[in-house]
Amino acid sequence: MEKVKRNVRMAVIAQRLTDTPNQIHTLNEFASLFGAAKSTISEDITLLAEAFGQYGGGAIETVPGAAGGVRYRSILSRAQMEETVFSLSERLRDPARILPGGFLYTSDLSSDPGMATRVGAIFATLFLPEQPEAVLTMETKGIPIALMTAKHLSVPLLIARRDSRAYEGSAVKINYVAGPNGDRVETMTLERRAIAPGQRILIVDDFAKNGGTLNGMADLVNEFQAHVVGVGVMVAARELHLRHAHNVRPLVRVRNMERFHEGVEVEPIRF
Amino acid sequence: MEKVKRNVRMAVIAQRLTDTPNQIHTLNEFASLFGAAKSTISEDITLLAEAFGQYGGGAIETVPGAAGGVRYRSILSRAQMEETVFSLSERLRDPARILPGGFLYTSDLSSDPGMATRVGAIFATLFLPEQPEAVLTMETKGIPIALMTAKHLSVPLLIARRDSRAYEGSAVKINYVAGPNGDRVETMTLERRAIAPGQRILIVDDFAKNGGTLNGMADLVNEFQAHVVGVGVMVAARELHLRHAHNVRPLVRVRNMERFHEGVEVEPIRF
Repeated sequence: MEKVKRNVRMAVIAQRLTDTPNQIHTLNEFASLFGAAKSTISEDITLLAEAFGQYGGGAIETVPGAAGGVRYRSILSRAQMEETVFSLSERLRDPARILPGGFLYTSDLSSDPGMATRVGAIFATLFLPEQPEAVLTMETKGIPIALMTAKHLSVPLLIARRDSRAYEGSAVKINYVAGPNGDRVETMTLERRAIAPGQRILIVDDFAKNGGTLNGMADLVNEFQAHVVGVGVMVAARELHLRHAHNVRPLVRVRNMERFHEGVEVEPIRF
Repeated sequence: MEKVKRNVRMAVIAQRLTDTPNQIHTLNEFASLFGAAKSTISEDITLLAEAFGQYGGGAIETVPGAAGGVRYRSILSRAQMEETVFSLSERLRDPARILPGGFLYTSDLSSDPGMATRVGAIFATLFLPEQPEAVLTMETKGIPIALMTAKHLSVPLLIARRDSRAYEGSAVKINYVAGPNGDRVETMTLERRAIAPGQRILIVDDFAKNGGTLNGMADLVNEFQAHVVGVGVMVAARELHLRHAHNVRPLVRVRNMERFHEGVEVEPIRF
């Protein structure tokens, strides 16, 4: 077999690790792919970790033990997070986002694959120390950013729904206070098999004003006897205050929710 | 400035391209990152394209012209697509998926970030030649795979909803025939600003039995005077037949939808 060059090995390992964040790859996988010794692959990975560290492209971690190997973590630098939050703020300031009734149009932002990817990477970076075991969101607009957060953390995504459907099996159902003025009672359901007791759950949503939906999701997690380890919100009202408030991280605060027609005042968070 | 080694440059370029499928990067971006000549970066990229080609890790394309540069396309090989469809089929055969009333539990598959990523990469590979300009799905369960398809194609994701909401602005609304027996009329809406006339739309969903929702989405696209260029469905009933049927690609066919209690008969497609 012709010997594969180091630069080819490193590039292909970089590609495979980046494509599967948080997933553990064994040295054997790469050793047999390239017909190389494990010690050679080990050196490749040391060089790769240095290169990624130097150019801010996420982190490569070695996992020891029998089930060990190497994995890619898309940990962002502070500068990378600030760049995304800045571009999010710029796009939110567009006056064309103001709709009749003083609503803010944000659907295009939360469902833009590029923005969802970057916001998900930020939440994964912020909440990685909490070791979440699943990401929970409520349908519909929060799903893209919650999915990208789950992908970067390599954990399942759970979607709470307004109504339970026959094809989901038995479900847990709660009522929560919703609506822009907190004057409406709505229903939220999640299939029984989604969460196991004691699990560590990260809540993610695209937008929060009074926090009714977020509080509802926290109640839902409690019903499963599981724990909320953090709350990531892309855009939150200045006055958002959560009942079970700990570890709540909005990326952008909007100040004058009641008077959007006077212009959108946007305040990016600092990391 | 200390000269950066080729293996470091190639690894970091591999990481950045893989992380942003379909997005064009200029040679200048990498030249200034490494303090290297454009001709050097150009050589790096030629070697990278060869390496990716050899190890089946997607394709690197050079885009000529003033707005040109280089981009990563996550084009899968036939073997990679078959591997995903095989593992999807295996998971669908689990008898625990059969719910009372003969429904099939699939929520965990469509919202698993790893599965959603791979299914999205398959649809992107299959429909890339159609040059879709946006991916359309209907809330809720199809969103993860539709998002990953959109991400791999680098186009926006559009989410049709059951009801229009004030924060979405003016919307187009249609009625469509839904339900397991096609005996219910439901409503589907999409915000007016989502699609421009003449756009090329790819429809993606997780599950189809009679195709009511898929036909509804096709009607919705017609309302915008846009074109459906393909339909990707993760799991479809054997008898699925679409009214506007062209370029419909289910990854898995399920045969005995009416008699799930006798076991799930799953037929993976061949590529």
